[in-house]
Amino acid sequence: MADIENCDLKTLSPLQLFEKVTEQGEKVRALKAGKAPKDEIDAAVRMLLSLKLSYKTATGQDYQAGLPPRDLASINNCTKEENEDLVDPWTVQTSNAKGVDYDKLIVRFGSSKIDTDLINRIERAIGQKPHRFLRRGIFFSHRDMDQVLHAYENKKSFYLYTGRGPSSQAMHVGHLIPFIFTKWLQEVFDVPLVVQLTDDEKYLWKDLTTEKAYEYAIENAKDIIACGFDVNKTFIFSDLDYLGTSTGFYKNIVKVQKHVTFNQVKGIFGFTDSDCIGKISFPAIQAAPSFSSSFPQIFNGKENIQCLIPCAIDQDPYFRMTRDVAPRIGLLKPALMHSVFFPALQGAQTKMSASDPNSSIFLTDSPKQIKTKINKHAFSGGRDTIEEHRKYGGNCDVDVSFMYLTFFLEDDDRLEQLKQAYTSGELLTGELKKVLIETLQPLVAAHQERRKQVTDEMVKQFMTPRKLAFEF
Amino acid sequence: MADIENCDLKTLSPLQLFEKVTEQGEKVRALKAGKAPKDEIDAAVRMLLSLKLSYKTATGQDYQAGLPPRDLASINNCTKEENEDLVDPWTVQTSNAKGVDYDKLIVRFGSSKIDTDLINRIERAIGQKPHRFLRRGIFFSHRDMDQVLHAYENKKSFYLYTGRGPSSQAMHVGHLIPFIFTKWLQEVFDVPLVVQLTDDEKYLWKDLTTEKAYEYAIENAKDIIACGFDVNKTFIFSDLDYLGTSTGFYKNIVKVQKHVTFNQVKGIFGFTDSDCIGKISFPAIQAAPSFSSSFPQIFNGKENIQCLIPCAIDQDPYFRMTRDVAPRIGLLKPALMHSVFFPALQGAQTKMSASDPNSSIFLTDSPKQIKTKINKHAFSGGRDTIEEHRKYGGNCDVDVSFMYLTFFLEDDDRLEQLKQAYTSGELLTGELKKVLIETLQPLVAAHQERRKQVTDEMVKQFMTPRKLAFEF
Repeated sequence: MADIENCDLKTLSPLQLFEKVTEQGEKVRALKAGKAPKDEIDAAVRMLLSLKLSYKTATGQDYQAGLPPRDLASINNCTKEENEDLVDPWTVQTSNAKGVDYDKLIVRFGSSKIDTDLINRIERAIGQKPHRFLRRGIFFSHRDMDQVLHAYENKKSFYLYTGRGPSSQAMHVGHLIPFIFTKWLQEVFDVPLVVQLTDDEKYLWKDLTTEKAYEYAIENAKDIIACGFDVNKTFIFSDLDYLGTSTGFYKNIVKVQKHVTFNQVKGIFGFTDSDCIGKISFPAIQAAPSFSSSFPQIFNGKENIQCLIPCAIDQDPYFRMTRDVAPRIGLLKPALMHSVFFPALQGAQTKMSASDPNSSIFLTDSPKQIKTKINKHAFSGGRDTIEEHRKYGGNCDVDVSFMYLTFFLEDDDRLEQLKQAYTSGELLTGELKKVLIETLQPLVAAHQERRKQVTDEMVKQFMTPRKLAFEF
Repeated sequence: MADIENCDLKTLSPLQLFEKVTEQGEKVRALKAGKAPKDEIDAAVRMLLSLKLSYKTATGQDYQAGLPPRDLASINNCTKEENEDLVDPWTVQTSNAKGVDYDKLIVRFGSSKIDTDLINRIERAIGQKPHRFLRRGIFFSHRDMDQVLHAYENKKSFYLYTGRGPSSQAMHVGHLIPFIFTKWLQEVFDVPLVVQLTDDEKYLWKDLTTEKAYEYAIENAKDIIACGFDVNKTFIFSDLDYLGTSTGFYKNIVKVQKHVTFNQVKGIFGFTDSDCIGKISFPAIQAAPSFSSSFPQIFNGKENIQCLIPCAIDQDPYFRMTRDVAPRIGLLKPALMHSVFFPALQGAQTKMSASDPNSSIFLTDSPKQIKTKINKHAFSGGRDTIEEHRKYGGNCDVDVSFMYLTFFLEDDDRLEQLKQAYTSGELLTGELKKVLIETLQPLVAAHQERRKQVTDEMVKQFMTPRKLAFEF
């Protein structure tokens, strides 16, 4: 019965549903106060719970008394709440305005939470304050970090591997997340880094020539270099280029390819019989840099240097596969640190996309463009009118400007103040957006300035396979 | 009825079947001579045809009056004759003792027959007598040779591509066929040659390490060099090695991989969902050397130099796929010349296998081993007793010693004499085998002598990507 009612309720707007829940709540309280028969109270409670479920289905938020809903994109499918978030390397979809349920994802993917204990251990190991991405749960999940830290505490080092699929010339601020964190890891642990640019992947998936994909790779390399990596510790490579210049890379690729069946990649990545054989075998190419023998120049041919991969959680399927294969080809499993997704300006239901200019702040955007985009497109957790906002306050859990500030505002105290002021209704949406604009404008401008200084010669240096400033 | 009878007849030996056909033939003749009723004659003829079919099913040969069958491996499946020969890169199976039906294969594969006109045209183009492999139909099928010759006649050259899957250290004489022919083509047309050693394929298909597969590749390269190729015109490469040293090879591989689906390789090669993704994507690696841009050092980056591939017909599926993809990636289709299979000592139903030492004459065999193997294992088309042989003669169509002589005896007249003498019963099996032994022993010994002179330095030279002595 409840199910049928829920389905009928889907014609109601979130606000109408909110009112129905409030009404039913009052009814339950009245029945309890009037000491009504138990049956009658129980029936009213069941109805209340059912209405709350409908509300959550429609809004992606739990009902909170006195906190009316924002005008969310309506969700028509009654069973949607039952569905899991969709997270794979090509799609991130959730019905929840707060974004993907990351705790559930940890259980589903079988990874571990980056908890206070682990963060404290990192702090002890490096003797520095952990990065804000750790303090704020932006890097929230890991695999085998205990092992990496144990080895590190015993003077055994590791290397970092991260990457990027260069699908268009301009990168957006979300693309910086793994690089900002990786740069920090490189500095505090003093370890080498390899950065894979999967131009071959982009050629296979998109309507691009190999030349165009390679061109994007070079352009993206400039943005990555502009993040401030040390050329003596960093090797950036395009697959299309490096595969033809490394004596170790292809050997590891073919080893992975021998130990993964089509059935497996079908299960992990959802490939079908109509997919090209390039896509089907590609996961091995993203897997291979997890093994130090793919970089004979850097590691002097050594096979078992531990690899640590900082990446967004949607890349985990590649590395679950890699970790499954590694012991079967006599190599070390890579460790991982996973980040949450960087939300689109329009809301946390999906990640930013480089192909939709209005979903992102690009690293090429002018101060004016940044201001306009945030003011016009950043999904707000504030109320419709100033009066309502002052009365009920804003919702930081769904407010994209606030989310962006958790990524980019370094000062913990300031962030907490903003949160409290916004939640209480003291700070208005426009004021919160202003803080974000003032945070992002100099950050993007500084990036542009650094990028201008990246010469072709520097790109060539970073992309030349060579010995780095480390002994293993 | 005939079908049921045929199945019952399968318990009979080939000789018993032979006698039954002979008996039934006499019955038909008697009925006709006695002007028996039409119905009776027709029934007897139907029975005769049905018996002949059973005979062919059991022996792989047409019934010939007065020519009793050899003791063939019995073929128990009544419907076998209906089946086509099985020919793909991993299996060659036929029920016919004469070997695969190559005319049917031409129709099935959609290639063209190398006919007298084409052979004459080659002779005119090169101004020399065509190779015995052409004169004797050993290279019997082609794709686009007219086009290659037309271009050649108009001073536009081409390059040769052939290959080998190095599965064990020792090569057998059958492995020499494509190389002997390729060397001849190289000489008479004066063109460069690339030789692919698919050590990655062998790693994927066999229980081998990459190191072992590469070791086999190097050993096999020595045998190939010992065939007498000119180092200034020939580049030999291992996939495991060259993929990591060529700026052009991987780019062509990934282009092919983008344009071939799993459905297609499933159809062409019979891959299944349980096959590893390495096997599934491998066909692109065998395809890529068909394009001159895979060898930037040799062709100075030029993309559209025509390729001609001499190979055994079982490799055609790879190149049917390649020719299908080529125009879609803006590249030239390779032309092909196909050879028949080199039969196993035990008979032409299957090709020689490097993994069964008794099925082959190895290039490492001593004169004594060659003698013993041929005497002991070479399937004979002769009769069981000298008396029978003198009376009925031998059958050159199924005699492996005679087949080998068609491959290796240069003198056409001598070969024809041997055939006539053997067919008439004048020449005995032992005598024919002696001719083969005396042909192969010096050939193998000479190969061994040349192979001894192949130094590591020479291997390195042949396997170094470099400019060859040609201008395109």
